[in-house]
Amino acid sequence: MRITPEPTMRRLPHYLHFLKRQMENGVEKISSTIIAQALSLDSTQVRKDLEYTGVKGKPKTGFFVKELINAILEFLTWTTRRDAFVVGAGNLGSAMLGYNRFRDYGLHFVAAFDSDESKIGTKIYDTPIFSIDKIPSMAQQMQITVGVLTVPAQAAQEVADLLIKGGIKAIWNFAPTYIKAPKEVVIENHQFTESLAALTRKMVEVDFHLLKKE
Amino acid sequence: MRITPEPTMRRLPHYLHFLKRQMENGVEKISSTIIAQALSLDSTQVRKDLEYTGVKGKPKTGFFVKELINAILEFLTWTTRRDAFVVGAGNLGSAMLGYNRFRDYGLHFVAAFDSDESKIGTKIYDTPIFSIDKIPSMAQQMQITVGVLTVPAQAAQEVADLLIKGGIKAIWNFAPTYIKAPKEVVIENHQFTESLAALTRKMVEVDFHLLKKE
Repeated sequence: MRITPEPTMRRLPHYLHFLKRQMENGVEKISSTIIAQALSLDSTQVRKDLEYTGVKGKPKTGFFVKELINAILEFLTWTTRRDAFVVGAGNLGSAMLGYNRFRDYGLHFVAAFDSDESKIGTKIYDTPIFSIDKIPSMAQQMQITVGVLTVPAQAAQEVADLLIKGGIKAIWNFAPTYIKAPKEVVIENHQFTESLAALTRKMVEVDFHLLKKE
Repeated sequence: MRITPEPTMRRLPHYLHFLKRQMENGVEKISSTIIAQALSLDSTQVRKDLEYTGVKGKPKTGFFVKELINAILEFLTWTTRRDAFVVGAGNLGSAMLGYNRFRDYGLHFVAAFDSDESKIGTKIYDTPIFSIDKIPSMAQQMQITVGVLTVPAQAAQEVADLLIKGGIKAIWNFAPTYIKAPKEVVIENHQFTESLAALTRKMVEVDFHLLKKE
């Protein structure tokens, strides 16, 4: 097993979404060139990325769409069910709890946590809200592997420590701060600013090219 | 002006956050090697990325932290104020409206829109909510350049069309669907699945390396 470059990991969902749309449209075979064109990528890059999943395209036929979809899903382990806690039942936490599609990626939110007493004991989209101090014991009991952090920055480390104490394997961090954790715990910081940076910079570069055309 | 590779655009906020923390700690000069180590990147990559901002490090001194911060901010045009609409005042829209830090990146939410009659006329975090049919005229009048889409997938294209009709330059799309737009309109799809893919795949690879150690 090779270590997968992070940009490859991040591109795989884009291939997946595109391939699913193709399958819905009845497409059975597809070439890396067509995938590359549709996603504005280099076709060599596409072939390299897809090689990580273990599926190899054939010179003339290309890839079988269904086979490739399954290979990506398995590679990302999205066919495996993972039970997760959402910590922070504010707006973003509620948005996460309400977004059904995460189940398509194996992620099942089984409980949420908040420090706000008025929320504890209630439900958000059918997910019950518990007190934050219940995290370690409940995580252990329920064998939770993923914690989704949607708390303010100042609460993030404290809550992360509780999740780690509960034996969590990975934290999906939406709090705008970095988190310290033991090496064996995966911390994935979701950065809203990444796509905002791409957006604002592209605005400049699009403007520039338009000006050049005139 | 060169076209900036998208991965470079997306890494710049990470440099920015790191450099800001360094400046807070009183660090005045920094080398690309130290930046690379802190962010688990290759130092050649770091130098290449930072070159796009126009600032060049000196062989022994490295970069001046403050100069580099300003260069990144200017490159991303985050020193320029941009007025934006948020369309979709549900959980995710509310989370966006409540997240004050976007102002640090020049993004000011001046109005929000929803199709839910009970929300129209109310405010979320001081931002007034209007009816969706007001988008084109208000966008033109207020010279809005950015639209943030936090509506369900099935409503995304219709709402995007209204924003485009109103003369918007860019759409930050959080709806889980692709949007068609004229070439001169920047569409940035924010994909939650990108970081989820990195998270779940890293869980496997971390497991594997742990097993190897034992």
